[in-house]
Amino acid sequence: MSRPRIEFWHELASTYSYLSALRIEPLAEAAGCDVVWRPFLLGPIFKAQGWATSPFNLYPAKGRYMVRDIERIAAARGRTFRLPATFPAASLLASRLVIAAEEAVRPAVTKAIYVAEFEAGADIADRPMLETVLGDCRFDATAMLARADSAEVKAELRANTETAMTRGLFGAPTFVTADGELFWGDDRLEQALAWAAGKARC
Amino acid sequence: MSRPRIEFWHELASTYSYLSALRIEPLAEAAGCDVVWRPFLLGPIFKAQGWATSPFNLYPAKGRYMVRDIERIAAARGRTFRLPATFPAASLLASRLVIAAEEAVRPAVTKAIYVAEFEAGADIADRPMLETVLGDCRFDATAMLARADSAEVKAELRANTETAMTRGLFGAPTFVTADGELFWGDDRLEQALAWAAGKARC
Repeated sequence: MSRPRIEFWHELASTYSYLSALRIEPLAEAAGCDVVWRPFLLGPIFKAQGWATSPFNLYPAKGRYMVRDIERIAAARGRTFRLPATFPAASLLASRLVIAAEEAVRPAVTKAIYVAEFEAGADIADRPMLETVLGDCRFDATAMLARADSAEVKAELRANTETAMTRGLFGAPTFVTADGELFWGDDRLEQALAWAAGKARC
Repeated sequence: MSRPRIEFWHELASTYSYLSALRIEPLAEAAGCDVVWRPFLLGPIFKAQGWATSPFNLYPAKGRYMVRDIERIAAARGRTFRLPATFPAASLLASRLVIAAEEAVRPAVTKAIYVAEFEAGADIADRPMLETVLGDCRFDATAMLARADSAEVKAELRANTETAMTRGLFGAPTFVTADGELFWGDDRLEQALAWAAGKARC
């Protein structure tokens, strides 16, 4: 029998997606689940809801809270969160870059980008910065960035975003189990894995 | 030395507040914390953000998700959630009623109202229904409902709502510790208690 699978829908500009990206692999392994990394863009989904930017910018009290919430959670996990000067970042290029990476290294590329963005405070719309991050991880940055501009990569990202919208996703991260259950938020990761592994039902 | 205290800010029409109301007492006791129950109205806060109703109605995908999320969580805790026909309820009377109750019985009255609302699907704007709920708990429903209409009770609810807004609350439940940290959502209850008890800092 094949192992249960969980889809990890994440947005490269999302703070809570960053939290999940850094911990999903060991947790999924412990739960006996495989993870499918699915990057998508929240921008078009927010736009369809009538939002021109992140709710954290539209609602300042919520934005201030989010920063403190992430700081506390990151600290409890031994990380130091830093909000980039531009938030949310324009995540189109970084999202395409992740899709341009071979399946096996996607998680590593994704995590490296999140750490640069939310711990070093880098702007992930900055192509030379991404090149440096990739180089530091010993990836072929030039080839990967070239592939990021290809029609196939663009189409895959567009398809991901459309699928996300069709499935009713409205935020990130969202975990989707094989039976179609949605779990929204880093704080639902454990519950999603338990569900995927058949240890929770209702 | 006095025991650490946590303020439990809840809205009588809020599904996630219902989840917390049913579990905060044993969890707080285990953490060695006292709980101060602070009912408030989210309506004026939503209005100040430009929302005419709950975000769960404004954003249908989010509303559908919320129902499923609460169903799963309630089931995992041995409860059966039921969304009332009118959601969110007009919670003014129920909120005043809770404030009209003596301090010592406020939690019991609050929990009875939440169970009627989110497990029996009752409309908490319905005065005779509230009377029945109070009577079933052996409270003096007539006296309590009369006091709910008093100027002092109305003023206390208004003051609670103003304090909530001043402190930057934007949703419910929110837990506030003595050092002013906010923790939003039923899923932050354990973290808030650990913080209040001095077992988490950053």
